[in-house]
Amino acid sequence: MKTLLRGLLAAFLFTAFAAPATQAFARDKVVYHINDAEQQALAALRNVRNQLDTVPDTDVVVVAHAKGVDFLMENYKDAATVGPLISALHARGVKFEVCEITMKQRNLKKDQFVLDADFTPSGVVEITRLQQKGYAYIKP
Amino acid sequence: MKTLLRGLLAAFLFTAFAAPATQAFARDKVVYHINDAEQQALAALRNVRNQLDTVPDTDVVVVAHAKGVDFLMENYKDAATVGPLISALHARGVKFEVCEITMKQRNLKKDQFVLDADFTPSGVVEITRLQQKGYAYIKP
Amino acid sequence: MKTLLRGLLAAFLFTAFAAPATQAFARDKVVYHINDAEQQALAALRNVRNQLDTVPDTDVVVVAHAKGVDFLMENYKDAATVGPLISALHARGVKFEVCEITMKQRNLKKDQFVLDADFTPSGVVEITRLQQKGYAYIKP
Repeated sequence: MKTLLRGLLAAFLFTAFAAPATQAFARDKVVYHINDAEQQALAALRNVRNQLDTVPDTDVVVVAHAKGVDFLMENYKDAATVGPLISALHARGVKFEVCEITMKQRNLKKDQFVLDADFTPSGVVEITRLQQKGYAYIKP
Repeated sequence: MKTLLRGLLAAFLFTAFAAPATQAFARDKVVYHINDAEQQALAALRNVRNQLDTVPDTDVVVVAHAKGVDFLMENYKDAATVGPLISALHARGVKFEVCEITMKQRNLKKDQFVLDADFTPSGVVEITRLQQKGYAYIKP
Repeated sequence: MKTLLRGLLAAFLFTAFAAPATQAFARDKVVYHINDAEQQALAALRNVRNQLDTVPDTDVVVVAHAKGVDFLMENYKDAATVGPLISALHARGVKFEVCEITMKQRNLKKDQFVLDADFTPSGVVEITRLQQKGYAYIKP
């Protein structure tokens, strides 16, 4: 009987305090959505840098699809500007994810992207699921 | 005493395992926000199609207000292009909701909209409440 | 023993019913993200007004950064139009928050902003944290 009660109490305390801790999102998490490199990429990179400068342990995922994937390509017209920013942010833990549906539709290959880029089967599915895991959303 | 304990245990187990299940959002849910048909509508429809092709049982609600409602009107200039896309997505369960405040301000009537369109009293209220019910947000 | 059980039961009931209540977000909460005053400010102010007209007790925070802070400056070119809207919304409880990183980068001082403006150390951090506290996100 005592054992049952103790187990119950322990389990209750675990739930009571673990659940709120999860809900409080002790660590900031955010997904940046880029679907137009021309309009958004440089602003987004600067936003992310400012966010990390303010709260260094923020989890940041940048998801790019459609025209948004361009700034992660090796031959991007502003690669000289954005390349070092991307590398610096990647070194600080930022993930850059390219939509594979976009790649298929635009006939792009993985080796056309910078080494800091990762890939995700569908950009919009990834953006949806990150939010449902507790990530905030920012459209730069 | 034993009855109380059993009830307590049952209730605890229900809470402990039911709550996380709800929080995990077993099914993807997402609201697409359209406030400029010209800039966003076609991209949004393609995004939604890609999302459903990847994860067919996703709950998708497209909320349109301001200049965003135009693509759901029967006389939309690109109706020949977007109409079939809208119908196909509607047949797959996607909801299209038009803001009634916009309709009032622009003096539009329900019969000017395609049959696949639904209506919501306020687009921004709907977008807010869907997110608070666990829907992710995507601005195409 | 009985005391322990009663305490446990009380604590359990509190958790079981308090947590869902919090998750239901009894009150609508929403953060509006403005990073381009020219494109978004007037639309955003009208959206917020419509939202409050529909659901008066909504918590609304408008976070402005980058080019988005301009409409909150005293010398904004459309101050005659947006000023009264800002004041009216502020009187109804809407918070307007200006990003201090933007101010530093653009060398702006607090006394250049309207009296209804508040300030936040980082706009993107604020937008992230409001969402993680349960605020919905709207990009006008």
